[in-house]
Amino acid sequence: MSSHHIVRDDQEPALIIANGAECSNELLGQLLEWSPMVIVLDSAMERVVDLGIKVDVLLGDFDGDFNPEIYKEKQFPLEIVHSPNQDKTDLEKAFDYLIEKGHKAVNVIWATGRRIDHTLHNLTISANYQNQLKIVFWDDYSKAFLLPKKYQKWYTKDTILSLIPIGTVENITTENLFYPLQKENLKLGYRTGSSNHVANDGIVSIEFEKGDLILIES
Amino acid sequence: MSSHHIVRDDQEPALIIANGAECSNELLGQLLEWSPMVIVLDSAMERVVDLGIKVDVLLGDFDGDFNPEIYKEKQFPLEIVHSPNQDKTDLEKAFDYLIEKGHKAVNVIWATGRRIDHTLHNLTISANYQNQLKIVFWDDYSKAFLLPKKYQKWYTKDTILSLIPIGTVENITTENLFYPLQKENLKLGYRTGSSNHVANDGIVSIEFEKGDLILIES
Repeated sequence: MSSHHIVRDDQEPALIIANGAECSNELLGQLLEWSPMVIVLDSAMERVVDLGIKVDVLLGDFDGDFNPEIYKEKQFPLEIVHSPNQDKTDLEKAFDYLIEKGHKAVNVIWATGRRIDHTLHNLTISANYQNQLKIVFWDDYSKAFLLPKKYQKWYTKDTILSLIPIGTVENITTENLFYPLQKENLKLGYRTGSSNHVANDGIVSIEFEKGDLILIES
Repeated sequence: MSSHHIVRDDQEPALIIANGAECSNELLGQLLEWSPMVIVLDSAMERVVDLGIKVDVLLGDFDGDFNPEIYKEKQFPLEIVHSPNQDKTDLEKAFDYLIEKGHKAVNVIWATGRRIDHTLHNLTISANYQNQLKIVFWDDYSKAFLLPKKYQKWYTKDTILSLIPIGTVENITTENLFYPLQKENLKLGYRTGSSNHVANDGIVSIEFEKGDLILIES
């Protein structure tokens, strides 16, 4: 294990490159710049290597024609994690791997935009990891993450903020959103807070009592 | 109103072209072929017209720079529905429009693949319409729709079927899936039935008692 695999408290988030639609090189470059560890999922490796990126960990069930061993030399040192467990997706296994290695935060790219079953599952499964890992999903349009029960951040006016409940979220109260919520519930499939936006330059505050709530900044 | 706006009982589904990522021309062509009515949402019209498609209804809040009137002549007869209500998305307004006109079923394309807040909201909001409109989402990778409490259909072996619960779905029992469920619950964010597949050529059966369950065929 190389020295950069030792996790420090103040460490920048790891980066997982999943197997969905590619993002822009600009976004990729920004996230790579400070990342202490890059994990690539399964056959996405072919596309990642074509972009000239140094990968630390290649993880997957490798159950297709894909042969991970051919990258061992070119990408040395490369850890290959074979994870045949079919109860979890490769993305969940990568979260498990990071938690085991002591990581506290991860950025995830290429996790959306192709198969919608993957998009839906990937984005929402972060709820299951919320006490162990801070997970942020990025693509060319948006940044998505699970909110803590009380959230405050400075935004510029008109920034699009969507509140997507994973199931039902109770007693949501917001400040400085154009469509404010006052102790209201959101329920996926019936009422979401999609495409809200920031009313004025300044702090946006979002609080809720129960449930799992995703914030998507667009 | 032109004669093809009269809805018959046995009528093919209408087609909504939303404002997300384009699909292949092949899929578009297949869905257009039998569609008695084509609704385009807002500025997606620019991309649709470039493809040489005849549109019946152009619906949106038209709050950007987009001017719908310029299409009136070229696309004659074209109904322009200005829907400024900000409590609903253009897609929901298009569903409302179809219900009002007596339609029972609709195919939706270009509703996924760009902004993930739109993707999540669009796919799940169909739960709110399940008693009024049969909604099927299509893209180049998958077909997604809400399941009735009891569902049976013939599939070929290895077809990928993902069960995505909108919130919690209770007492799901499946037959002929590779990872079967026996009176089990799925909960979005914690346990979904993503990337299951058909065990053998034949009837797949899915039953559940409570909740809203999306099936995604990939």
